[in-house]
Amino acid sequence: MEKGKLLYDGKAKQVYATDKDDEIIMHYKDDATAGNGVKHDQFAGKGVLNHTISGIIFDMLTEAGIKTHLIKKLDDRDDLVKKVEIFPLEVIVRNITTGSFCKRTGCKEGLVLDKPIFEISYKNDEYGDPLINEDHARAMGLCTEEEYEEIKKETLKINELLKEFFLSLNLKLVDFKIEFGKDKDGNILLADEISPDSCRLWDVNTNQKYDKDVFRQDIGDLIETYKAVLARMQNK
Amino acid sequence: MEKGKLLYDGKAKQVYATDKDDEIIMHYKDDATAGNGVKHDQFAGKGVLNHTISGIIFDMLTEAGIKTHLIKKLDDRDDLVKKVEIFPLEVIVRNITTGSFCKRTGCKEGLVLDKPIFEISYKNDEYGDPLINEDHARAMGLCTEEEYEEIKKETLKINELLKEFFLSLNLKLVDFKIEFGKDKDGNILLADEISPDSCRLWDVNTNQKYDKDVFRQDIGDLIETYKAVLARMQNK
Repeated sequence: MEKGKLLYDGKAKQVYATDKDDEIIMHYKDDATAGNGVKHDQFAGKGVLNHTISGIIFDMLTEAGIKTHLIKKLDDRDDLVKKVEIFPLEVIVRNITTGSFCKRTGCKEGLVLDKPIFEISYKNDEYGDPLINEDHARAMGLCTEEEYEEIKKETLKINELLKEFFLSLNLKLVDFKIEFGKDKDGNILLADEISPDSCRLWDVNTNQKYDKDVFRQDIGDLIETYKAVLARMQNK
Repeated sequence: MEKGKLLYDGKAKQVYATDKDDEIIMHYKDDATAGNGVKHDQFAGKGVLNHTISGIIFDMLTEAGIKTHLIKKLDDRDDLVKKVEIFPLEVIVRNITTGSFCKRTGCKEGLVLDKPIFEISYKNDEYGDPLINEDHARAMGLCTEEEYEEIKKETLKINELLKEFFLSLNLKLVDFKIEFGKDKDGNILLADEISPDSCRLWDVNTNQKYDKDVFRQDIGDLIETYKAVLARMQNK
């Protein structure tokens, strides 16, 4: 599979065309950004780490019946994936309160929730990915009611699978962000990545942070942290 | 019914105790505020106008089966109402897109929606009444799932009644904000007021604004505007 034209150059990934119309290559870069791109740095090897971590997670989810865009791993930074139309939604689940939700509302940090919070943001850098609800998404034509319901159902299933998976690594899944796309046949597929860039992970015993917050808050070495997550996954 | 102790002094209303534990007096002031209190002015007679307008609307809603806190009108600024515990929620319906929703998301102004948008904000001045969703409300203990569902159902009913009512006055109901409270028996009752302070109303033919936006945007005389709304209601 040869890499074709660069179709998209994002904050942490690039997308390339292939010789098939409905397949593309997703390439993991070494960049890390925070605060809607205000903070930006490069970490040699980050792309390889996230690619490996996300690959293990996508394989686990696929085995559990979740439909994803992943076709196959090409090398240590590149995946061959189905071309999908990405819903312009950041799909977020919170199991423990922290981050933007607490900042916006004054809600107490660290509340362990009986039932997770499901929320969506409108993926739009100019407006800072504002929180919306399902009625806003429908009114703005971002997804239909049926698509919203399917995305929500799949996401809550994924939350249960991820919570269990990370707990077996002695990590609490605090919250995470995922994205979905629609293929040419209208199937809704999990897309993008799942990694310490997009999940908050706290050690079960010490609450030490094993995610991008070490970069956001300058409280640890990003590469060492991500390596430690991968080591827990490989030593499982 | 004698006015007792001042219990609450809000932006546009005051609340007084009565000699009964479960009844209070709601008093309409002449103040108008906008932008979370940043803009503030007084308009002689505004309280009387809003009290009269809201009274007519609450009577119409009561007749249509909506349960409200209103017991009876006492004079031209005062209502005797049931004491309720107000849910700290601004309950909002949008039939046409404008205002904060468009500012936050970049959504096109003036879209006439097939189905209304229902949304809730956390009533909290310090945080600027942030938008939340039902999961946030539950997590923060603002209302239960069942209370949320009842509030949503009642609100969408009220929207249909208000839309029809204002259309008969040649006014489009663009959006509105209402509040609910819970009485000592757990009944959820419509509370607060419904007036040009809390509704956006546009003339069907000219789209002229007949609401607090004339004050927010300095595009007209507030008292003359509110008088014109009341005149349409009384000449019906």
